[in-house]
Parts: sequence; structure tokens; C-alpha cells
Amino acid sequence: MLAFLGGTGPEGKGLALRLALAGEVVVIGSRDAQRAREAADSLARLAPSARVQGAENAQAAARAEIVFLTVPYEGQRPLLELLREQLRGKVVVDVIAPMRFERGRGASAVEVATGSAAQEAQELLPDSLVVSAFQNVSAEELQNPEVTMEGDVLVCSDHRPAKGLIMGLVWKIPNLRPVDAGGLANSKYVEQITPLLVNINRIYKIHAGIKIVGITTEPAG
Amino acid sequence: MLAFLGGTGPEGKGLALRLALAGEVVVIGSRDAQRAREAADSLARLAPSARVQGAENAQAAARAEIVFLTVPYEGQRPLLELLREQLRGKVVVDVIAPMRFERGRGASAVEVATGSAAQEAQELLPDSLVVSAFQNVSAEELQNPEVTMEGDVLVCSDHRPAKGLIMGLVWKIPNLRPVDAGGLANSKYVEQITPLLVNINRIYKIHAGIKIVGITTEPAG
Repeated sequence: MLAFLGGTGPEGKGLALRLALAGEVVVIGSRDAQRAREAADSLARLAPSARVQGAENAQAAARAEIVFLTVPYEGQRPLLELLREQLRGKVVVDVIAPMRFERGRGASAVEVATGSAAQEAQELLPDSLVVSAFQNVSAEELQNPEVTMEGDVLVCSDHRPAKGLIMGLVWKIPNLRPVDAGGLANSKYVEQITPLLVNINRIYKIHAGIKIVGITTEPAG
Repeated sequence: MLAFLGGTGPEGKGLALRLALAGEVVVIGSRDAQRAREAADSLARLAPSARVQGAENAQAAARAEIVFLTVPYEGQRPLLELLREQLRGKVVVDVIAPMRFERGRGASAVEVATGSAAQEAQELLPDSLVVSAFQNVSAEELQNPEVTMEGDVLVCSDHRPAKGLIMGLVWKIPNLRPVDAGGLANSKYVEQITPLLVNINRIYKIHAGIKIVGITTEPAG
């Protein structure tokens, strides 16, 4: 089972929808169990075949083997301090790109002392297997099941089997491709692509994603 | 005429080659005029139709209307402090991605106090029109005229006409596409994609580039 903590927001709902459509059982987590159930109901209306539940974050985390962090960056630290026990030994997928918006300047990256949201999560959860992924995928497009996704999902982790597991999940979403982007130290660069894409979106009036060109093979070695 | 300061290195030589092949007159700049002429000769052997000269950096800068910075990041500040006069009123294209390499960790971005190499160049050259571009294009592939380039060149500047001029130059290199990536504040994210690509290169044994997916139109407004 896959949990999406803070999954009532656009990124969490979109990812949960796509992975439920791919046959995964998903649970939407929220601070408010009622809101979580409402989000789960709205997903079930979009995708009647989906197996989707709603629960309070701690219960969602406890039920799942793979837990996605889809809260705003400001919510990451309090959430992880609260749920350290429930997340022990689990694969935790950090989808968060720390960003701020300023009128006239657009989106910019928020500096994180440890380097990136994903590295901070790994520091807060030393007994979990943190994987960074999905930051550069448009939440708007994820939420619309009529849209075929396009582009790459860069996946970083210091835990190789956990990275492989999440790369396998990416393949389940039609037309998305996972790219092994190395260790968690690279997550900073991946997270900072997100404000760049947000600013490009505004210039071109699109929902941009990225693709790495030149990959013709599986990762070497 | 296009000048490439520090153009005896792989990125400068590669870009000069591609733009010379596209019909531009280029001058390779170096601290050492003799080395610059040797680099120019080696380009002329690769591309006999190319109009290419070599000169000491200051002379190269003085001759050209558009000046590319292709020195290592450590060389940027002393170079620009030296050539402020020659670069006044000109379009200065910053190709530099500040990076370091560490054994076992791979490539990582070097922090720049002003945010990015390109912002630092603009601060050092208040009377020049700084444009950031070409950081994510493989120097190895640029240098081999047999290889058709692939991918996007993200172009950032606070000077709209200068940005348009450089986007036009990108179109002259077959199969590369310029993407308007907004103001110079976005250059940080573009520069930091380079160490990410270097690390992906090592994982896949490729020369990676990037492409923005979802662009079907010219920039809006």
C-alpha cells in the first residue's frame, strides 16, 4: 500500500490518482481524517477502478510500506518529527520542492540548511530509506486522467534497492520514465529545477516537465 | 564577430566550432595569444569553411560584439575586472557553471554569493548586457562536428533584446532549441543542472543534455 501524507494537495492527489490507476492500493493522509476521506472519494469518482482510502496522516503512514511526502515544505519537519516511529524501516518518497513566490519575481528556491528537502528528511528519519522523486512533474497534469504524462522523473537516494523500487513505480505511469540521478546529494539540483519550471510555465503558458536527452541504456554498473 | 574568452578549453572551443560552422566569424581568446592561435588553427582544420581567429583575451573582447565567457569559474572575476572597459555596452554570454569534483561524491555546485555565476558577471559588468546560456550542453559533443546536437539551451537575462539575440544564435546550431528561461535570477537553477548532468553522465556512461517538455509555442506575451 502507498500512503500520500498531505495527499489532499494537488501533487499528492495527482500522484495517488496515477498510481491508483496503475493498480496500486493507495491511502490519502491528512491532518484531518474527514478531509482525507473526501479527497479519497473525489479520486474514486475520477477513477472508479481505483482502490483508495482516506485516513489521518499517522494511520496512513502506519498502513503503508511506501510513504510519499506531499506536504508543503513548511510542513515537512513537524510531520516527520511526529511520525518517526511509523516511518521506521519504510521507504519514504520525498516529493517536496522548497519554493517561495514573490510578486514580480516569480518562483524561487528556498534554501535548506542540509542542502535539500530530501536530505533533511533523511536526517530526520535515520531509520527510513528516503528517496527523492517526482518534484518536476506537473501536479495539474497528474490530476487530469485525460492527459498522458510526458517526461522524466529524476530519482535520487542513498539506498539503492529503495531507489530501484521507486524507479519501478515510475514505469507504471504510462509514458513517464525514471532516471537514476544518483545519491541524495543530487536532490538539491532536482528540487531547484521545480521553481525554474514554474517560471518557464509562466513565460510559455504551459505545464512544463523535463527530459534528460542522451539516455539510450540502463544505468551502467 | 563572436569572441570566446578562455576559448581554448573544451566548452569554448566546442561552441566556437558550432557557431563558426553556422557561418559566424569567431575569435578564440586566451591569456596567451599563441595558444589562442593554435586553438583557432585546430578549429580551422576541423571546419575548413570556418572563419576563425585567435587573439589575447583583451583583443578578442575588443573586436567582438558578442563575447562568450568560457573560462573556469575561478577565472571569471579576475577576467571581468580586467576587461570591464572592453565589454562595456556589449552582450556578454556567461556559459560558466561553478562546479567542483570530489572523489566518491562526483560533481557538486559551488555556491556563489550573488546567486549564480551569471549574476556575479552582471554585477561586475553593470554596463554590459549579460545573458546566461549553454551551461547544459555537452562540451564533448560540441567539439565533435560529426555529432548532431540534441536538447534545449535555457537562456536567462534581464535584458530582453540581448536574450532574443542569443536565442537566435542557438537556433543556428542544428537541432538545438533555445528556451526563454526568464530573468538572470533563474540562472542559478540552470547552472546547477550541470553538476546533476555530470553525475547522470557517470551513471549512464553518456553525454546527457536536457529538454523542457510541453513547449509547443513561442513565449507568451
